[in-house]
Amino acid sequence: MELTHFDEKGNAKMVDVEGKAVTERRAVARGSIRMSQAAYEAVAARRVAKGDVLTVATTAGIMGAKKTWELIPMCHGLPISALSIDWKLDGAHCQIICQCTAKSSGRTGVEMEALTGVSVALLTVYDMCKAVDPWMEIGAIYLLEKEGGKSGHVIRAGE
Amino acid sequence: MELTHFDEKGNAKMVDVEGKAVTERRAVARGSIRMSQAAYEAVAARRVAKGDVLTVATTAGIMGAKKTWELIPMCHGLPISALSIDWKLDGAHCQIICQCTAKSSGRTGVEMEALTGVSVALLTVYDMCKAVDPWMEIGAIYLLEKEGGKSGHVIRAGE
Amino acid sequence: MELTHFDEKGNAKMVDVEGKAVTERRAVARGSIRMSQAAYEAVAARRVAKGDVLTVATTAGIMGAKKTWELIPMCHGLPISALSIDWKLDGAHCQIICQCTAKSSGRTGVEMEALTGVSVALLTVYDMCKAVDPWMEIGAIYLLEKEGGKSGHVIRAGE
Amino acid sequence: MELTHFDEKGNAKMVDVEGKAVTERRAVARGSIRMSQAAYEAVAARRVAKGDVLTVATTAGIMGAKKTWELIPMCHGLPISALSIDWKLDGAHCQIICQCTAKSSGRTGVEMEALTGVSVALLTVYDMCKAVDPWMEIGAIYLLEKEGGKSGHVIRAGE
Amino acid sequence: MELTHFDEKGNAKMVDVEGKAVTERRAVARGSIRMSQAAYEAVAARRVAKGDVLTVATTAGIMGAKKTWELIPMCHGLPISALSIDWKLDGAHCQIICQCTAKSSGRTGVEMEALTGVSVALLTVYDMCKAVDPWMEIGAIYLLEKEGGKSGHVIRAGE
Amino acid sequence: MELTHFDEKGNAKMVDVEGKAVTERRAVARGSIRMSQAAYEAVAARRVAKGDVLTVATTAGIMGAKKTWELIPMCHGLPISALSIDWKLDGAHCQIICQCTAKSSGRTGVEMEALTGVSVALLTVYDMCKAVDPWMEIGAIYLLEKEGGKSGHVIRAGE
Repeated sequence: MELTHFDEKGNAKMVDVEGKAVTERRAVARGSIRMSQAAYEAVAARRVAKGDVLTVATTAGIMGAKKTWELIPMCHGLPISALSIDWKLDGAHCQIICQCTAKSSGRTGVEMEALTGVSVALLTVYDMCKAVDPWMEIGAIYLLEKEGGKSGHVIRAGE
Repeated sequence: MELTHFDEKGNAKMVDVEGKAVTERRAVARGSIRMSQAAYEAVAARRVAKGDVLTVATTAGIMGAKKTWELIPMCHGLPISALSIDWKLDGAHCQIICQCTAKSSGRTGVEMEALTGVSVALLTVYDMCKAVDPWMEIGAIYLLEKEGGKSGHVIRAGE
Repeated sequence: MELTHFDEKGNAKMVDVEGKAVTERRAVARGSIRMSQAAYEAVAARRVAKGDVLTVATTAGIMGAKKTWELIPMCHGLPISALSIDWKLDGAHCQIICQCTAKSSGRTGVEMEALTGVSVALLTVYDMCKAVDPWMEIGAIYLLEKEGGKSGHVIRAGE
Repeated sequence: MELTHFDEKGNAKMVDVEGKAVTERRAVARGSIRMSQAAYEAVAARRVAKGDVLTVATTAGIMGAKKTWELIPMCHGLPISALSIDWKLDGAHCQIICQCTAKSSGRTGVEMEALTGVSVALLTVYDMCKAVDPWMEIGAIYLLEKEGGKSGHVIRAGE
Repeated sequence: MELTHFDEKGNAKMVDVEGKAVTERRAVARGSIRMSQAAYEAVAARRVAKGDVLTVATTAGIMGAKKTWELIPMCHGLPISALSIDWKLDGAHCQIICQCTAKSSGRTGVEMEALTGVSVALLTVYDMCKAVDPWMEIGAIYLLEKEGGKSGHVIRAGE
Repeated sequence: MELTHFDEKGNAKMVDVEGKAVTERRAVARGSIRMSQAAYEAVAARRVAKGDVLTVATTAGIMGAKKTWELIPMCHGLPISALSIDWKLDGAHCQIICQCTAKSSGRTGVEMEALTGVSVALLTVYDMCKAVDPWMEIGAIYLLEKEGGKSGHVIRAGE
């Protein structure tokens, strides 16, 4: 099986999407960050008070997702029609779960946008909590589902 | 324990680092991506041939690390003196491990730069392999060690 | 009346524009900057000589308007079809008036582009004149008219 | 009195700051936005609930201030040591007042950073409220005070 | 013959492309860099070994081409559908030739994208070889051919 | 002779400049663009009238030079202390010559900034004249002189 991002001489390239259909596309990605109880409680407390860590991280994640084409060398620029980020607080594991949904009407999928949105949002949580816990761990980041384009609506096995 | 990125009214802010000493600082972060055997072999084969996925991802990771201040809202811009990315191929688990080292002579640490470098490099691998395996998983991203500043040289427990 | 940039849980989000019609859209914004007579005369003199402050500011305003999506967190990226900036010198009040027109064929309006173009153009005038007058004042920035989309052609009251 | 941003032939240029002393510098700028009562109340209500408009605008303003060098053609890049944004709600005039403080240890002042922070923060409030009131007005944006460098600590007359 | 990027008052502007047809467009640009034999051999050797200079330069050229709208003041943002870069090693003249192809379905041509891709790719080769030869020369950069839009398929005379 | 931008395994990297001295550095680069007589005359006429092509190109070149770290993968971010661009009109050859001078007090040279400034300025002239002459040629771009750092003041042979 061959990688599509190289020409026959081995030069990296942006795949040509001109022949692909313009369809409505959607992708959802998920990731998480695990931290000490002290850090977790500081974030959770902020969630109900003024000065919310997760609002800053949501803003950063959405702005980061819009920069996907600029960060990932072979990504196409896409007319993003919607971006949203959702959070779940998992107190049992001192873990914060982040989910990013991206939508576009274009010729190529928005998986990278959703994954980049999650990554930047989690890095922002990390940055804002690292004075409390310098050893946090950003956990598995992966695609949950994907809609539009040739492969249609596909959902991650086990979800 | 209080988060440092908010003022007394709850407004998010960039922490004032003016009083902090300029010291040589270094940070190393690590992360990984797990993929199907077909995708793994395509990347590993590229590593020994022309058109290397990991050279593109190294380039993207270094460029991404330089953009940390732009992606993470409360991060300071830093005079980065060195950035490098190292890869390990773990064929037993179809896993590629990425390590980013950042150095700076400044008033604040370079953890976020190292972590962002790893994140963007792994997202780039993801992007270039997703036609082969659409369900890869970016694994735990965390700080390995950190040098310079008030806390001196600290190494992650268990490393 | 509810703000549209939050989901039901209070998370900030980019509004979904997928259902909106692609129409030709246009927006015109205006703003001004007031300065000392010395600064005003330096700008006005440049206008007729080589090395025009307002050409630099026009360039910056157009480039800034193209970055609106990057500066304003919940703004969509838009296929901008035209951008222009016009200036009026009001010697009676030592005031320079800036007007920016943006056009796009897209799913959402270009008000923010026109307003950002005016803001960046005026900040550039400020930067280039602040050695002469450090206490200038950027005056009211507002939308003059707006065309396209659901609301049709609307003009600011009193214009 | 001559503008400093042009050479003797009239070419625009970045002023040479190499001879200037590195001192601690600080600047504070202020601006405001006036809106309909409905829009004002939507923002004010958000301030005490989840999903705060002003937290998003604070984040955008801080990120925008860090991009000043990129937006304003002749601005130098500066090692910003602190950035903060403060808000005042003026219910009597349905007006929201924004104040941005920037600090740097460098060879040139941070006025433009403070002014750009205010501008981008106010544009973000505009963007998030324009569905409720499309005719808001961003009011006077000006420098309040400035510290460091040759001119020392200067305060706007009348403040 | 009049320049199209100015209005009747002499203000620079982005040309309005709203009336132009959306067609498939393609442009190819070429440029070269000449260097000392030692530098040339270091690059050529890398081409067949690990750590390829030209893969880094390809990545930079593609990323740079995507930033054309941001670098060139009056350029429109375009939905780029493909970007690729090809290299020829001319050992006889210690010269490396770079060719960039850009494609888009839009209202305006992609010449600037192809030319910017070549420029940034060659600057990257320069940067990576300047420790070996500080006096390299980036040679003629020009358009080879152009397809789509009003002028159809045109090829540079003599090619 | 070995390239410095790769580690012993062949990974591309940013060279570590931490050990290098902070000195005042300066670099001057030159380039040119050749065009049809009609295009040349349009630019030359603009030079003496309102709406100067070369003021827009100067602005773009200075802004582009400030983005060098972002465009060239292994370039360090530098505290640029001055940037200027100078033009010579060579009517005999319908040629416009651009010279960019960059200055910095840092640990590494500013050659790439001067070269990038020239490249972006010339691309901007190209963009603004391509409606008149679509077959212009950007000519040799090279370093003229370089001051500061280990190699001291060096001047291109033959200048």
